Amino acid sequence: MTVIENGGVSTPKGFLASGVHAGLKKVKKDMALIVSECDAVAAGAFTTNKVKAAPVLWDMSILGNSVHRAIIVNSGNANACTAERGLKDAEETASYTASLLNTETEKVFVSSTGVIGVPLDMEKIKAGAAMLVPALGDNGHDAAVSIMTTDTFAKEAAASVEIGGKTVTIGGISKGSGMIHPNMATTLSFITTDAVIAKEDLQSLLGVTVDDTYNMVSVDGDTSTNDTVLVLANGMAGNEMIKPGTAEWALFEEAFKYVLGTLARYLARDGEGATRFIEMNVVNALTKEDAKTLARSVVSSSLVKAAFFGADANWGRILCAMGYSGAEFDPSLIDLVFTSPAGSIQVVRNGEPLPFDEVLAKKILSEKEVSATADCHQGTFSASAWGCDLTYDYVKINGDYRS
Amino acid sequence: MTVIENGGVSTPKGFLASGVHAGLKKVKKDMALIVSECDAVAAGAFTTNKVKAAPVLWDMSILGNSVHRAIIVNSGNANACTAERGLKDAEETASYTASLLNTETEKVFVSSTGVIGVPLDMEKIKAGAAMLVPALGDNGHDAAVSIMTTDTFAKEAAASVEIGGKTVTIGGISKGSGMIHPNMATTLSFITTDAVIAKEDLQSLLGVTVDDTYNMVSVDGDTSTNDTVLVLANGMAGNEMIKPGTAEWALFEEAFKYVLGTLARYLARDGEGATRFIEMNVVNALTKEDAKTLARSVVSSSLVKAAFFGADANWGRILCAMGYSGAEFDPSLIDLVFTSPAGSIQVVRNGEPLPFDEVLAKKILSEKEVSATADCHQGTFSASAWGCDLTYDYVKINGDYRS
Repeated sequence: MTVIENGGVSTPKGFLASGVHAGLKKVKKDMALIVSECDAVAAGAFTTNKVKAAPVLWDMSILGNSVHRAIIVNSGNANACTAERGLKDAEETASYTASLLNTETEKVFVSSTGVIGVPLDMEKIKAGAAMLVPALGDNGHDAAVSIMTTDTFAKEAAASVEIGGKTVTIGGISKGSGMIHPNMATTLSFITTDAVIAKEDLQSLLGVTVDDTYNMVSVDGDTSTNDTVLVLANGMAGNEMIKPGTAEWALFEEAFKYVLGTLARYLARDGEGATRFIEMNVVNALTKEDAKTLARSVVSSSLVKAAFFGADANWGRILCAMGYSGAEFDPSLIDLVFTSPAGSIQVVRNGEPLPFDEVLAKKILSEKEVSATADCHQGTFSASAWGCDLTYDYVKINGDYRS
Repeated sequence: MTVIENGGVSTPKGFLASGVHAGLKKVKKDMALIVSECDAVAAGAFTTNKVKAAPVLWDMSILGNSVHRAIIVNSGNANACTAERGLKDAEETASYTASLLNTETEKVFVSSTGVIGVPLDMEKIKAGAAMLVPALGDNGHDAAVSIMTTDTFAKEAAASVEIGGKTVTIGGISKGSGMIHPNMATTLSFITTDAVIAKEDLQSLLGVTVDDTYNMVSVDGDTSTNDTVLVLANGMAGNEMIKPGTAEWALFEEAFKYVLGTLARYLARDGEGATRFIEMNVVNALTKEDAKTLARSVVSSSLVKAAFFGADANWGRILCAMGYSGAEFDPSLIDLVFTSPAGSIQVVRNGEPLPFDEVLAKKILSEKEVSATADCHQGTFSASAWGCDLTYDYVKINGDYRS
């Protein structure tokens, strides 16, 4: 696998992208378009929230079609809780974009993020679409910037693998940075690949990968109304079709997981108001599900997150969060270690506190990226979850989001 | 039912209490004792956390006994994650206290709260017990003060009812104020009553009541290792035994629920760093469980809590939190109203946003106590949950708790 520095959604063959300011936000870019030059198979994963935004309902309704062409996104207005009118607006966004691209309405996905409960300004959406189409090119970065809301940096990743002498490329963009929690915790992510792969295989690969990547990230415990991951695979790499269970599948899966995993960790790194990236590793758990549940519970705990903000080696809160997770483990067997670029320190052995050097612990926990590893000493399964600290700025950002 | 102003655990007949500074904390009172003059039947509810503090394990091991006499509490050290030594210390606390009270070790409950993972200083605990016994009297308020940790006020409640010409009294104290979340979300609560009631009936009444009171409060989503509610009923009111299904039971239940409900709401009101008390009412839900789940999900959402901090009428977050709760409801039928002493304003009708007066909304939401009511228009079941806003001070308090 080759990581492609500065790669994104327009890196795979036959994908074009653009991003513009359509006036939904005051100043910043707020609309993006991703287009495949030819028909592509698509896979999708959507929010589990019962309150689904109109564009999510639209995308779910067309995902069953055999092929698709484009994804149009706005980042100013979520078009959620907008009832019948919202559904009509989502469909009209697709049909207007389709007409500009000379394709069918049912081939155009629509995504939205932003304020809930305010009807879309369709004049601005249409004017934005009309600007996006002529701007199409190798402009994945513009698209990445245009889907940002409270994000502090654009999130892009790309990688390629050689499959039967052909270079197959995967690229992706994503946006954070609040309302991020296990259960399709993505907010919005768009993945492109030039691989030749069957639609049903792409969908099952997406399901498995989302479970190990986006669903292991928590910023604030809230699952949004708009969470969406869409993948388009247009086959322009010209490889032999990648089939599950083959060596080629394993290669492709590794690169696919790299792209989604990198984007997922960016979400945690850019959590609203975050000053610190937290990785929680659980090793030697009884089952994979236990390992995941334990790791997720720790990065979701407000008390753990606040302790990391204070660079406080309050390991009791980690054991406590594992304890109420509902997963199986024996507290009296746990070893716990904190690690960062500044070093490593063990604070618990067999469930009992070890005396430790508080000064060193503070130094380790004061780094920008910190990990904690809990060894369950019970089985062979491991999992990692990612999160961020809880800060004054999180409260500030979310205390008056609408103004 | 008569509410007893300034009443607490020493209000019911035959109960004595005291509180002292034993030196576990630097300055504040940190140990409390509650004693019944005669044997009492007991009921208890404990944390569901897999990591249970030593005193919780002790209390669970003796709760099956027929009668009890006392509860001794320290609020400086949780005695959690302290392994074998912690268990020995909890039992020794009970046995030392029992010897001072001339009773049996197995009749003395022990409760602790505070820092996790640090062994108890047994010399201070014993010295504290020796101070508490001679200080026993109508000093429920001292006990309430002594169990406080980050609480900003002592939490006490009491009420009485007439049963067959006898006055039966119930009193209680509780402490907050972080790590409070559904699932025995109590931190510590101690209830006394002079009622004549069978042990098994008291236990079932406690289970039902905790479910409607403490388990409907969320401060930060963390269920602690030490959560405990203990009830002692010593029968000194001399009433005919109160039996389930009778009119007397209904009277007693009302007063019992009043005391526990009042204490539970105090917990939310005094949530760490909170500036605002939030009540979420769900009405006309399909089932009681749906109503509870919906209400709890809203008061547990970090985004909702941050919006209340900003007095921001961001009702979309309330619908969103209902949406990911897992409970059954139809978003397109929801009505939503905000209410406070400053007035009332409807913001959603049939799932659609209503235009509303932002200035009035801000005024309503700027009050110290605010409620939101969601009408599901689907069934006949209702529930209320209580919480508080998420503030800079919550982060500050929890960013460096140990220092």
